[in-house]
Amino acid sequence: MSAARSAVKALPRHLARRSLALHSLASRPLAPLATPSVSSRRWGGSLPDRSSKFTKLTPDHIKAIRELLSSPGSLISTLDNSASPEDLAGFNNDWMGKYFGKSPVVVKPKTPEEIGKVMKYCYDNDIAVVPQGGNTGLVGGSTPIHDELILSTANLSSVRSFDPVSGILVADAGAILETVDHYLAEKGFIFPLDLGAKGSCHIGGNVATNAGGLRLLRYGSLHGSVLGLEAVLPDGTVWDGLSTLRKDNTGFDLKQLFIGSEGTIGIITAVSILCPRRPTAMNVAVFSLPSYEAVQKVYAEAKSHLGEILSAFEFFDKQGFALSSKHIEEIHGSERKIFETEGDFYCLIETGGSNAEHDEAKLSGLLEHLMSNEMVLDGVLAQDQTQFASLWSLRELLPEACGKAGSVYKYDLSVPVGKMYGLVEKMRKRLRDEGLLVGDGQKEGPIRACVGYGHMGDGNLHINIVANKYSEEIEKVIEPYVYEIVAAENGSISAEHGLGVMKAPYVSYSKNQTSIDMMRKIKQLFDPKGLLNPYKYIQ
Amino acid sequence: MSAARSAVKALPRHLARRSLALHSLASRPLAPLATPSVSSRRWGGSLPDRSSKFTKLTPDHIKAIRELLSSPGSLISTLDNSASPEDLAGFNNDWMGKYFGKSPVVVKPKTPEEIGKVMKYCYDNDIAVVPQGGNTGLVGGSTPIHDELILSTANLSSVRSFDPVSGILVADAGAILETVDHYLAEKGFIFPLDLGAKGSCHIGGNVATNAGGLRLLRYGSLHGSVLGLEAVLPDGTVWDGLSTLRKDNTGFDLKQLFIGSEGTIGIITAVSILCPRRPTAMNVAVFSLPSYEAVQKVYAEAKSHLGEILSAFEFFDKQGFALSSKHIEEIHGSERKIFETEGDFYCLIETGGSNAEHDEAKLSGLLEHLMSNEMVLDGVLAQDQTQFASLWSLRELLPEACGKAGSVYKYDLSVPVGKMYGLVEKMRKRLRDEGLLVGDGQKEGPIRACVGYGHMGDGNLHINIVANKYSEEIEKVIEPYVYEIVAAENGSISAEHGLGVMKAPYVSYSKNQTSIDMMRKIKQLFDPKGLLNPYKYIQ
Repeated sequence: MSAARSAVKALPRHLARRSLALHSLASRPLAPLATPSVSSRRWGGSLPDRSSKFTKLTPDHIKAIRELLSSPGSLISTLDNSASPEDLAGFNNDWMGKYFGKSPVVVKPKTPEEIGKVMKYCYDNDIAVVPQGGNTGLVGGSTPIHDELILSTANLSSVRSFDPVSGILVADAGAILETVDHYLAEKGFIFPLDLGAKGSCHIGGNVATNAGGLRLLRYGSLHGSVLGLEAVLPDGTVWDGLSTLRKDNTGFDLKQLFIGSEGTIGIITAVSILCPRRPTAMNVAVFSLPSYEAVQKVYAEAKSHLGEILSAFEFFDKQGFALSSKHIEEIHGSERKIFETEGDFYCLIETGGSNAEHDEAKLSGLLEHLMSNEMVLDGVLAQDQTQFASLWSLRELLPEACGKAGSVYKYDLSVPVGKMYGLVEKMRKRLRDEGLLVGDGQKEGPIRACVGYGHMGDGNLHINIVANKYSEEIEKVIEPYVYEIVAAENGSISAEHGLGVMKAPYVSYSKNQTSIDMMRKIKQLFDPKGLLNPYKYIQ
Repeated sequence: MSAARSAVKALPRHLARRSLALHSLASRPLAPLATPSVSSRRWGGSLPDRSSKFTKLTPDHIKAIRELLSSPGSLISTLDNSASPEDLAGFNNDWMGKYFGKSPVVVKPKTPEEIGKVMKYCYDNDIAVVPQGGNTGLVGGSTPIHDELILSTANLSSVRSFDPVSGILVADAGAILETVDHYLAEKGFIFPLDLGAKGSCHIGGNVATNAGGLRLLRYGSLHGSVLGLEAVLPDGTVWDGLSTLRKDNTGFDLKQLFIGSEGTIGIITAVSILCPRRPTAMNVAVFSLPSYEAVQKVYAEAKSHLGEILSAFEFFDKQGFALSSKHIEEIHGSERKIFETEGDFYCLIETGGSNAEHDEAKLSGLLEHLMSNEMVLDGVLAQDQTQFASLWSLRELLPEACGKAGSVYKYDLSVPVGKMYGLVEKMRKRLRDEGLLVGDGQKEGPIRACVGYGHMGDGNLHINIVANKYSEEIEKVIEPYVYEIVAAENGSISAEHGLGVMKAPYVSYSKNQTSIDMMRKIKQLFDPKGLLNPYKYIQ
């Protein structure tokens, strides 16, 4: 970007020169890994038994539901041979190859009213339902556990309205995050959320799981930016809570309950959200650092020098960098050395502002300070849009790189910033003590790597444990230990991924009994038959 | 401020010169008007009858409650002669002189546990309770309607903890907003909320009413910044939801239900909140403008030129400016002319950033653009901290100025920005048509002025109708008409003031039946006996 190009003039030569090493790292769209075939892997953990209170679907049910839909093609099922098990695999299974459902039917209604009709039928007939968006979740929240009907929002994907004065967007739940963001970009606005799965995930799913992502530091949580929701309630009522008002104090803020409810009290069908102006000047730099203490110091300096234009501060460790770099090399088919001096840690700093000259001056000030005080080992500043994307890919492709290296146990934790990396070290020690992680984990033991990375500004740490394969033995070493060390720091066992089926049994590590009791009552109030997304979340 | 001083060098002479006119307008702390005596005025509207399901308090109850408290002085009552009716007036009556309760007792526990004990006693004995913070509300939400026990958080006023790395503050609910903000200022942070009543209001009350205020444009709503709450539930349970995590997706976000619940499902006893860094450079300018269209144009220009440093954009009309200026002149005992060319409208622009030089450059760019394109009639830029406060006082003292001029009917509405001032014009026309507003309203009719002002960026309009006195006749002309014209624009009848008793009957103008039904169920779930803040909010 021209912004970065002129800023770099004032930088130490070393930094400017090193940045050129990146020029041929091409930008690449991000997407989840391909869905594995049904036979590839099985989840090691135990799952809740099927509840006998739910009706077992028959061809008659399928026929009746199909008649509720405006287009017969909106339903596919193995029960009437309109689909094979393989056709349903992408809906029954998650992208990590960890969770496998056995639903015989996927319904993709074309309007909220159709979803309402299907839901009412299910309500009247005690049929359990899994709402599904892009199915990009990480905790088994969007796939069936047994034979629940899959209700997909994929056919609700339009932008309903956008007001360029206020920046308020109203869009269908099934709209894909990246598509919506491109739509907004043309109008000079930005969706206040960004995450690795943006090419597949639905904004309805983002809201239902209260997704956090890469720019929460700048734009805050969805609880602050979502203005209204439309949702189908368990009895089939289409609830219109689709306010486009920035302020409205007329009663309980009901939409807040649906944000992060993981499809357990209603199916979100549309979202009204406040979108900020898109920054006209953006910069990104990545540094190698000697220690986690150094990362924390650089974070403090970044906040101080960059103030209101700091839009992201991500970190990852050398294990993550190794996997990510290898993955990128494989994509491009050639070896590249990005940093002259590599470190135990890396951090990515992004700025976004309205005045390129001012932003460059602030960023130059920071870079000079970091280099002259030897707070970083090496640094790379993006020189153009391609390099901007390439630097981001070091961080954004990290989950994909882990997935490529093996079967990944993913943990998403929230603890005070100073305590974050200590959790990775504790976990690594435990894996070594139990003989699972040997040496540097270079394919010698059952665990190949234990990687730590995350969103520094949010106190959100991701631990990815890459195993040769999922196994109950490994899982028992990791869980509940990982939740115990988080609970000891009063942290959260799920910063942003949610509970799903994976963490549902462990919610008491993060929530007290009074809270859990209140949650159960709310679930019972909204969904007395327990039809929506059963076996998960709060049971 | 030095920031503004050097910026002004580049401004047109006229603007620079005019700004000097303000130098002797001294800064003045803001506070609600003094509470009128009980006999001064009576509210014109009809109130709900007392419910016979609530126990009538006796001296025995008072004795029993006093025994629950660590300090006997934490309870005052007319039933055991520990207080006179005058002693209770400041708790029974609101500051506008509009709502008058008849409670015989005020309890001010010193800990959340004491509040829990008192609440449990009330629960066991069917005693209705009004939670009360600073009692600065505008809709009769914090005063009793009949003889409800008043439970004040005034004795819970400490900061519990502050983490300067994350900016996370944990404080008792009874801490006064301005006191907390001063505490944060010393550490380089700012409370993400500011409003006229800051000298009296409690942060617990702010959260319970989801206060919006003057800087929501920059820092967003409390739904985004509050991280956790502690609250006493109707049965006396002390619920610890006082998380200090920025991200936590482990179940329903329960605290969100309490934000804006107006004391109907629990008594907030402590707040955990994310506080941003305090801007190190701040500027404020006020302009006179020819029309509401001009205000909208200037708003668009301000957003474009100032980007991420725009921290407030307020507007008020000439009727408001006249009252405000007169009030300020009376405070200072001398006449002052602020603008050479006065207008039909005024707007106040505030910037807050991390680099004074950059902010000045951005602001100078805007001011030059506005002056050279004749988009404003006149402008004043604050030259130092005193002028900064003086310019703000034109807007901040406006409600107080209205209160001084008569009995004020206050409306707080949310509509799309383009439609905002049309509501004031419609209301003025109706008041004229009904013969209540004559000429310019210069003391000729029962209505002295109909003033419009508000938070431009939030689509939040305040209409203040200044009457000689409250009367049922006037109220019937205004209500429900004012709600009808808001509903016609899909607006909110309460952008930030809440429902209280004033707007409880009108909630259906802003919320559909499905929403109201859900709200009633939530109230019933949390407070099955209906003891907390009865007769108000959602009934």
